[in-house]
This record gives sequence, structure tokens and C-alpha cells, in this order.
Amino acid sequence: SKHTESALVKHGDRGMTLEQEINESNQYYLAHDIAVIHKKPTPIQIVKVDYPKRSAAVIREAYFRQASTTDYNGIYRGRYIDFDAKETKEKTRFPLDNFHQHQVEHMRSCLKQGGICFGLIKFVAFDQLYLLKATDLINYWDARNHAGGRKSIPFTAFQTQAIPIKYSLNPTIAYLDAVDQLI
Amino acid sequence: SKHTESALVKHGDRGMTLEQEINESNQYYLAHDIAVIHKKPTPIQIVKVDYPKRSAAVIREAYFRQASTTDYNGIYRGRYIDFDAKETKEKTRFPLDNFHQHQVEHMRSCLKQGGICFGLIKFVAFDQLYLLKATDLINYWDARNHAGGRKSIPFTAFQTQAIPIKYSLNPTIAYLDAVDQLI
Ligand SMILES: [Mg+2]
Ligand SMILES: [Mg+2]
Repeated sequence: SKHTESALVKHGDRGMTLEQEINESNQYYLAHDIAVIHKKPTPIQIVKVDYPKRSAAVIREAYFRQASTTDYNGIYRGRYIDFDAKETKEKTRFPLDNFHQHQVEHMRSCLKQGGICFGLIKFVAFDQLYLLKATDLINYWDARNHAGGRKSIPFTAFQTQAIPIKYSLNPTIAYLDAVDQLI
Repeated sequence: SKHTESALVKHGDRGMTLEQEINESNQYYLAHDIAVIHKKPTPIQIVKVDYPKRSAAVIREAYFRQASTTDYNGIYRGRYIDFDAKETKEKTRFPLDNFHQHQVEHMRSCLKQGGICFGLIKFVAFDQLYLLKATDLINYWDARNHAGGRKSIPFTAFQTQAIPIKYSLNPTIAYLDAVDQLI
């Protein structure tokens, strides 16, 4: 539609990463009392900190650590929400190694507690974004090391199994509309 | 009781901070499929990163940032859980300036969405730990700048309004037993 096209142009103009688009959408949802969802800070192992006189502490040596959870969580309509966001340049498939074992295990644990868990997967070549339910993701993940299992999820599976998310102006990506279909 | 005393001795021996006690308890809850609750990483503003050949990236200049949420969140019995932990050396009161405005606003937003929000407050002089409901915390917070409002919560209020949490062996602090009283 015309509306979608102009939103895509606008979105392209601004050159935002998927993370920026999600953060902006979360700010909109928070400001409008729709949901409280935040990205977790990047985990850092701090080794050395300087404390200069009369100014802020400076971290002088630190290393990136592997996260033990997904990147985003929060609350929406009384439900615990938990997801990760991934971009791929591939056009025919989403390689499963974009996810890490601990992220999949974390989603498995959250599902057991009754959480709403999913991946937000963007095919940047088409500017197409999908919500993939964690149960579907986990099925592909668990199958990948078995006979006949694939190392990736075919793009066609997103078209049939996943929920497409349209770009809009406010919020940039209305991914909670897709979550409504899971609740 | 004898059980509590020996747990306290054990706890004292190990010299754990409240954060370590909570992290250890969260590991226990996760391993036993009771809850999925994690501490968020400390937010860091990264300014300079070196990428040495054949070794891990090193952060060479970074600064601590103020968190925009509480430190802990997750899911328990299908409910969104959100809290912060504070220690005080005071013996007669808990100074409200241990909390930051944004943490209180975050709890207010989460309460609106139906979350279970609270503070875990430890009086280290007595080795006593309490769960204080966010609604009670917010009442004291909002009153503090008005006539007759206090800048702190009296210790006696914890004894009457808050839920005491006992130290035990597994988990170190069974704070979800106190949460059960809120659900
Ligand atoms: Mg990620
Ligand atoms: Mg804290």
C-alpha cells in the first residue's frame, strides 16, 4: 500500500538499525502506557577503573561478555514478554547460528513459566520483519543436529509460519500488534 | 530458631553482598524451574575500543551510566517480576535517596501493566532483609517532598508493613516465598 511504501522510504532515509527501531518503538509504547519493555545493557567484564579527582570514573580495561539471556524483556497486558532481534542479509534462509545456545535455553525456561517468547527476524535485503514464535524457533533449533535437520530456517517458512510486522510512523515497528496474535 | 542461626552464620562466613545472595538464589530458582529472574548488566557508555590482532576486543575508555530501570526482572508463576535491591547501614531508618527517581517511575509503569514490583531492603547491621511492596515504597516516595513527609522510611515500618525474608541454604534467600504473599 501507499502508506507502507512511504513508511519504508522514511525508515530507509533514517538508516536505523533494527535495534534502534525496536528501542524507538519501546519508547513509544512506554510513553503511551502500552508496555514496559527495555533492551538489556551489553554485559561487560570490567578489569580496570581509574578514579580521577573531581571527575567521573573511567573504565580503562574491559571486555565484552556473552549474554546469558535474550536482549529484550518486559511486561505487556500483564504478560511477561521476552525476545531477541536478529538481522540477516541472506535472501532465502535465516541461518540458525544467529542464535546462541544460551538464548534458546533462556527462551525454553521462560516458556515453561508462561512467558511470551519470540524472535524478531529482519531480512534486510527485502526490508521485511517477522515475529517468529519461540516454539517454532526451538523446533528448528532442536532439529538442526538430527538427520534431515537444517542449519537454517527457509525464508518460505517465515512467509507461512511467522507473523509479518509492518513499518509505520508511531511506533516505528508495531510489533506488539503481532504479539496480540499470540495472547 | 537453630536452623536460622546456622544459616546466618554460614551466610556471614561467606561474606556475600546482597547482590551475590540474590544472584545465587536466582540460579537456584532457575535450575529448579521455579522462576527465571536475572540481574541486568551495568549500563556502560563505550567510547573507545581496541581490536588487537588475534585476541579479544578491549574496551579502553568507557563510563558508567545511570540505569533507566530497576536491576532485576523476570518471570515467576506466569507473572512479571521487577525489583531492586538496596542495603543500608542505618539502624533506625531506610533513607529514600537510596532509590533514584527513574527506578520509582519504572516501578510505577510496571505496576500499571500488572507487574509484581518491590524492593528488597537489607539492614546490614541486623542482617535483616525485607520485601517492601512498590505501592508502599511509592507512597513514601511521593510524600517525601510534602509537608510532614519523611526523607526516610522508619525501621518500625518495615517491621509492620514489609515481609521479612529469612536466610536459608537453598536458596540463600527465599524471596519468592515472600512474593507468594503478593500474588
Ligand atoms: Mg541480539
Ligand atoms: Mg541496585
